[in-house]
Amino acid sequence: MSDKTSKGNFFEDFRLGQKLVHSTPRTLTEGDVSLYTALYGSRFAFNSSDTFAMNLGFEGAPIDDFLVFHIIFGRSVSDVSLNAVANLGYASCRFSTPVYPGDTLKATSSVIGLKKNSNNKTGIVWVHTEGTNQNDEPVLDFVRWVMVPKRDIDAPAQGFLTPELDPMSATKELPIPSALDLSGYDTELSGSQHLWGDYETGERIDHIAGFTVEEAEHQMATRLYQNSARVHFDAQMTKDTRFGKRLVYGGHVISIARALSFNGLGNAFKVAAINGGTHAAPVFAGDTLYAWSEILGKDQIPGRSDLGALRLRTVVCKNHSAEGFPYRSGEDEYDHTVVLDLDYTVLMPT
Amino acid sequence: MSDKTSKGNFFEDFRLGQKLVHSTPRTLTEGDVSLYTALYGSRFAFNSSDTFAMNLGFEGAPIDDFLVFHIIFGRSVSDVSLNAVANLGYASCRFSTPVYPGDTLKATSSVIGLKKNSNNKTGIVWVHTEGTNQNDEPVLDFVRWVMVPKRDIDAPAQGFLTPELDPMSATKELPIPSALDLSGYDTELSGSQHLWGDYETGERIDHIAGFTVEEAEHQMATRLYQNSARVHFDAQMTKDTRFGKRLVYGGHVISIARALSFNGLGNAFKVAAINGGTHAAPVFAGDTLYAWSEILGKDQIPGRSDLGALRLRTVVCKNHSAEGFPYRSGEDEYDHTVVLDLDYTVLMPT
Amino acid sequence: MSDKTSKGNFFEDFRLGQKLVHSTPRTLTEGDVSLYTALYGSRFAFNSSDTFAMNLGFEGAPIDDFLVFHIIFGRSVSDVSLNAVANLGYASCRFSTPVYPGDTLKATSSVIGLKKNSNNKTGIVWVHTEGTNQNDEPVLDFVRWVMVPKRDIDAPAQGFLTPELDPMSATKELPIPSALDLSGYDTELSGSQHLWGDYETGERIDHIAGFTVEEAEHQMATRLYQNSARVHFDAQMTKDTRFGKRLVYGGHVISIARALSFNGLGNAFKVAAINGGTHAAPVFAGDTLYAWSEILGKDQIPGRSDLGALRLRTVVCKNHSAEGFPYRSGEDEYDHTVVLDLDYTVLMPT
Repeated sequence: MSDKTSKGNFFEDFRLGQKLVHSTPRTLTEGDVSLYTALYGSRFAFNSSDTFAMNLGFEGAPIDDFLVFHIIFGRSVSDVSLNAVANLGYASCRFSTPVYPGDTLKATSSVIGLKKNSNNKTGIVWVHTEGTNQNDEPVLDFVRWVMVPKRDIDAPAQGFLTPELDPMSATKELPIPSALDLSGYDTELSGSQHLWGDYETGERIDHIAGFTVEEAEHQMATRLYQNSARVHFDAQMTKDTRFGKRLVYGGHVISIARALSFNGLGNAFKVAAINGGTHAAPVFAGDTLYAWSEILGKDQIPGRSDLGALRLRTVVCKNHSAEGFPYRSGEDEYDHTVVLDLDYTVLMPT
Repeated sequence: MSDKTSKGNFFEDFRLGQKLVHSTPRTLTEGDVSLYTALYGSRFAFNSSDTFAMNLGFEGAPIDDFLVFHIIFGRSVSDVSLNAVANLGYASCRFSTPVYPGDTLKATSSVIGLKKNSNNKTGIVWVHTEGTNQNDEPVLDFVRWVMVPKRDIDAPAQGFLTPELDPMSATKELPIPSALDLSGYDTELSGSQHLWGDYETGERIDHIAGFTVEEAEHQMATRLYQNSARVHFDAQMTKDTRFGKRLVYGGHVISIARALSFNGLGNAFKVAAINGGTHAAPVFAGDTLYAWSEILGKDQIPGRSDLGALRLRTVVCKNHSAEGFPYRSGEDEYDHTVVLDLDYTVLMPT
Repeated sequence: MSDKTSKGNFFEDFRLGQKLVHSTPRTLTEGDVSLYTALYGSRFAFNSSDTFAMNLGFEGAPIDDFLVFHIIFGRSVSDVSLNAVANLGYASCRFSTPVYPGDTLKATSSVIGLKKNSNNKTGIVWVHTEGTNQNDEPVLDFVRWVMVPKRDIDAPAQGFLTPELDPMSATKELPIPSALDLSGYDTELSGSQHLWGDYETGERIDHIAGFTVEEAEHQMATRLYQNSARVHFDAQMTKDTRFGKRLVYGGHVISIARALSFNGLGNAFKVAAINGGTHAAPVFAGDTLYAWSEILGKDQIPGRSDLGALRLRTVVCKNHSAEGFPYRSGEDEYDHTVVLDLDYTVLMPT
């Protein structure tokens, strides 16, 4: 029998300092943009309209930040998380150079942390993943950590380090696209009159609309990102998992959250950073998702009076309206309806 | 709690003469064209093939007329019909400047009619919606009217006028693209030998094939158009509506009708006008749709011998073959299988 | 009633030597490429990345070979197989000029064989289908044969000839793109270290992952190809067929096989020929597909030391893992899990 198929990496395959060059560089196109619109229905004019984006100093409508995230994340799956038992978290995600149709993205990851679990069956792997375009300009980088099983219970770990993370590092030095000029920003076309100055820390917003997830949709999304994790696609194999069915890729839920957040945050035209994210519970086809957001903080941007940053928490609930802002049911416990808790930073005109 | 989410307009929010600038201008691309093909499978060579369209004097394959319609319609939903109880009708829809991939469309609507209903709970709003491209050229305009609830039963209407409509106004002065030259029209490549002269008023055509609607498909279509009406996407909320489930966007049915009509009307390469349309019954995922057409009239085009217009009625039935041409079951009543009754005008080589 | 709808050709409509010009030339775009990725999730860098393909001497990422196949096949359905009782086989399929976004493809078929069946109700039709681009360069040609019913049991056949086929003819003279230069081939980016020299005739590879088919997905795929065969789209009509439901287009299964084969054949960057294919059993929505491949042979390419050909058999099973390589259950009988047996030739760096 052949040994040519990849079974993914196990805990003992990772080595501190190891650099993983991920395969399948990906040219993003207008086709990807249209599919992304069809999958999520996002209405931010900045990503929908060349003319709107050109009025802000861009060469055309940049590709949605989370589509870029999913493409870079997708590259890393076969090397980092094909065997992951759990995606434990993200942090320090910075969106840098804007991506346009025609750009080709590739990704590498560095192993920055390793910790064997006490059960000796699994370990935690931290990676710093970097995405670049065809000119080797950085488009996105983030840290994520996953729990990965060992292949051989007796194999030694290739290093031991719990990295010190500053989840807010991207937000502390926000990457503002140099082209950005908000003097031509049109709030009729953006769809909201509410600007940075109108939001208050602590304010909560119910995004109202619901979004029912279909198998064909999350599968098409996850394949568009060339994310090859089997749990999303194989109804037969997942019958024998604890859920008994296909699991929706967590990033699909993030994109749904962003699309829903348009109603209430219509001028949050650009995601600048993800500070942290937790998938509190799994999502399956048939679930209806709702979202609400809280303004966690407001930051001025040094040297700019036209632009401010909002730090947001967006929470997604399943099969339960976001009215009442369901969140925690105990100190360390999420309400049973919560599936996503996302802490991120957006840009908004002042 | 935040007041930043839009709940849409209620009857008393509309004012006679009011102009609504709709948000989110939309750049249409080849990606949208491919999705439209995947969603409906339309086979008109004019919209599928750059070379075929260039042989008729165009710069490339224009974007399907109904895709343009859905994009313009989609812009208007959040201002006009987010709260609509019923979409009562369309009329006087004129397709003007052809739209190509790369064009950016935006839309505005003027309130041209208001009528409070005698129950004092709802009213009818007529709007004239105009879509333009990035050069401010008109691409499409139409009148539609919707029944909208009042927020406050005691609020006064901001005007009273039932507009006099001429539904046929677009067909009376057909907008023929100036580039159009049919001398290179190839009936082998178009897929039909039947030209304008071969059709007779009163002739009926069974388009034969059936089309089963899936949730993922109508949701992706409706999100592609950035139509944000909740009833199409939210299985949980719609459990409590009178249908108990998600409702298919009426425009999805129109595009299915047009795609099915290829078999029998293969040379109706361009839609020039919609004279009127009625959604006679709701469509849900799982329904199988069939279509038939009747030639309502034939018009010559002043100054052109290569081109004629056909006025068509296309009727869509659900879960019942179009054989036998089901239509009316009484003077004012549709047969229970009928879901769409569309009166429109197409162009065809003579 | 109108006679303007096409009911497709019946056995007695075909004539030996007849040339069928298929309708609806099709401009392929980046939108089609994105949809193809979303539908199958294929990860071959050659079709995903402009930069990867340019490093091999191409002007950009060529369109996936099987997408080209489906587009050409799709053109031929309404003339050749709309009424087919069975698609009996393919052979001698040669992929010639690479296809890029922007190219417009059209197709013609010649009737090269006719054989009336002894039941006098059906006959077999062999066609040679050729696809060309807008410059009349050949992009693909293949032979296929289908069983077609007679309309009129008494109608005579318009010829009698069982063609002598050499299924391997394409593989014998492999069409190698003249631009191809493998000196820049990067096995980190391709995702596999295994090159032509590493494979042995007789070697079998389990591609591991499973792929569950959804109605919305196979319908969108089949409509993207503008394949109009009713059995794929009409749940109501197919209730009365022997399967009682919609049938998945066989080509959808081929594309799934190719995408799954990436894990184990990651450097098989280009399909050069299809030698033969059998759809051993029908596939329906809900089925989960698995694939395995056997190396049937290895061929050197005259005049090239950088490139070799592998002749492969890829077998797709439904609702059963490919572990154990299920294939035959008797001399002429497939194992009951087998749905596709595809014999084809791929190119791989040495």
